[in-house]
Amino acid sequence: MAVDEDVEPRRIVVVGTGLIGTSIALAMRERGAEVLLTDRDAAALRLAVELGAGTALPDGASTEPADLAVLAVPPAAVAVTLLDAQKRRLATAYTDVASVKALPLAQATHLGCDLSTYVAGHPLAGSERSGPSAARADLFLGRPWALCATPAASPEAVAAVRALATACGAMPVEVDADEHDRAVALVSHGPHVVSAAVAARLTGADDVALGLSGQGVRDVTRIAASDPRLWIGILSANSQPVADVLEAVATDLAVAASLLRDGSEEAATHVADLLLRGNAGRSRIPGKHGGDQPSYATVQVVIPDRPGELAMIFQAAGVAGVNIEEVTIEHSPGRPLGVLELAVEPEAAVLLADELRARGWSVPSPSPSVPPSQAPGGP
Amino acid sequence: MAVDEDVEPRRIVVVGTGLIGTSIALAMRERGAEVLLTDRDAAALRLAVELGAGTALPDGASTEPADLAVLAVPPAAVAVTLLDAQKRRLATAYTDVASVKALPLAQATHLGCDLSTYVAGHPLAGSERSGPSAARADLFLGRPWALCATPAASPEAVAAVRALATACGAMPVEVDADEHDRAVALVSHGPHVVSAAVAARLTGADDVALGLSGQGVRDVTRIAASDPRLWIGILSANSQPVADVLEAVATDLAVAASLLRDGSEEAATHVADLLLRGNAGRSRIPGKHGGDQPSYATVQVVIPDRPGELAMIFQAAGVAGVNIEEVTIEHSPGRPLGVLELAVEPEAAVLLADELRARGWSVPSPSPSVPPSQAPGGP
Repeated sequence: MAVDEDVEPRRIVVVGTGLIGTSIALAMRERGAEVLLTDRDAAALRLAVELGAGTALPDGASTEPADLAVLAVPPAAVAVTLLDAQKRRLATAYTDVASVKALPLAQATHLGCDLSTYVAGHPLAGSERSGPSAARADLFLGRPWALCATPAASPEAVAAVRALATACGAMPVEVDADEHDRAVALVSHGPHVVSAAVAARLTGADDVALGLSGQGVRDVTRIAASDPRLWIGILSANSQPVADVLEAVATDLAVAASLLRDGSEEAATHVADLLLRGNAGRSRIPGKHGGDQPSYATVQVVIPDRPGELAMIFQAAGVAGVNIEEVTIEHSPGRPLGVLELAVEPEAAVLLADELRARGWSVPSPSPSVPPSQAPGGP
Repeated sequence: MAVDEDVEPRRIVVVGTGLIGTSIALAMRERGAEVLLTDRDAAALRLAVELGAGTALPDGASTEPADLAVLAVPPAAVAVTLLDAQKRRLATAYTDVASVKALPLAQATHLGCDLSTYVAGHPLAGSERSGPSAARADLFLGRPWALCATPAASPEAVAAVRALATACGAMPVEVDADEHDRAVALVSHGPHVVSAAVAARLTGADDVALGLSGQGVRDVTRIAASDPRLWIGILSANSQPVADVLEAVATDLAVAASLLRDGSEEAATHVADLLLRGNAGRSRIPGKHGGDQPSYATVQVVIPDRPGELAMIFQAAGVAGVNIEEVTIEHSPGRPLGVLELAVEPEAAVLLADELRARGWSVPSPSPSVPPSQAPGGP
């Protein structure tokens, strides 16, 4: 789909120096582009400039239009910001980065914005941190970047926005705005609210209960730590698709609760169906490198919690010629010990385990993922 | 609470050689104990013996009672297994490891088991993998291990089970059975079903939608990959407390859906309340070393996906004297590049970033967590 002749924008304006806007600015500065920055929050603008993201857009003075203006503002502000930017002739093409696409497009149409120079966009990258201080030039590397061009958009505007995404290291994905909004409700906005609802249950829990927390509840609630002010804007702007997802999840949970209260064998079978559907859905999430979810073998090592230990382990892996695909450190609450889990290609697991054992670490035999049908025993 | 004179069991029987039973056996073998194993699945028993977890319990022949029998069977099988073990005089004290405590206790009482020699237990450790091949001697290191002794239990039985937990490296937590079950419904069983319900939504999604998946939905749905056969047993045995949690979450989600459909400013405020409660609940989960959730600074490094790179980075951290608290590798779908995130004490972040930069890696300025009140801009 990408056109070879897409001309990379050399001069861009970034309106809004939060996490995403500043990250785009940093990425384009690394490509040698000239970047002009503006934000209604003077402190955020100053910080972005200090971080080397660009120079402040001169106030009022009319300048030559840039190749592209990136509107990195909350969803509800996209259309008015676009109208204002077009009136000021900030650029010859415009895009935004909001997590929601249909509403800003409808509002832009309603306000009479020029849709020939505007291509809505959404880089699928973020963090539970926010603001310019969390920005990084590599935030978009290898990530999808949705582009929702309307039929009114000029080929030049589409090419400029596609070139921006590519220049930031992302993969442009052309998609209809409504389809985009339903997709992100399913894989991002809905799960976000669900994570918050699980975490909200913990507010009234006593310390004994919280002391029994394991890795599961930590993973399920990680994104519940995100900034509510950013998220309420996203959810409000994508309200109907998100409501569809939340209602479906709420129904599944209410039915599961009622089946559990029922207590019959048959009721249990229906709860097990939900768990099986969960297995099936989880396995559909694409894995690393855009391929299918890979199955790695896991090598576990007990490590003291002190500097240098990880270096020696990774050095040993390097010596063995083994590539580490995933790393997790499982800390032991209350003890200065951790369990390091190294995911590697199945055929490399024994090699790595042997190398680590030879160097004195205690390493149990590598455990390949056991399919449920082969798994005996139980908790 | 722990009594210094708790005598560590020297001879134990493990009934059920799944993940937990085999891990206890391995841990006690490392302590030099004699371990006898039995499982109705002959293949699982053979594998556990091959892994060095102990020797097979001789069939039929009556042996001298062991110091302790560990019943590592599903919740619904605990009481009958206890009755059978007591009839065979397998040991002088008994415990189990089921994730649910009140139901097995009630069933054991009903069956007329000897409650003076039985102390119900639950090590809070596990894996989305299962079976003896996933077992490790260090599975319980630093983990809580709930003990639910009834008033009928003898001090000797309590001491034996507490000594087992301590010998496995766990922290014994004495708690009432009903309180235990409500707690794990909140921090484990409920989140498990919710994770499955989110993942179940993905079964009908198209590939474009799934291609927009980020780390958030991956984290929320990780435990949805667990074995449904194990989990349906746990959920059925703790049905009322789990149903309470699921109903509360379902209600919060249904209300959020209806507020989003409403679309008013006031409705949005109520959705934001749920997100704020999520922030508050998430922050109550205890962090590493049993303390409060620590705030680390994050240092990010872009790394090529090849052997040796991680070793060099961790070596650099060791040289700088910086202890890595958490590691995540964020892979770039479709590209042989990853972003390594290193969580370190805030005062060590600049030191580490400088060291890595000096050695040629591209490292953005470390980003401390920005409290929401300081976070400008937005997606």
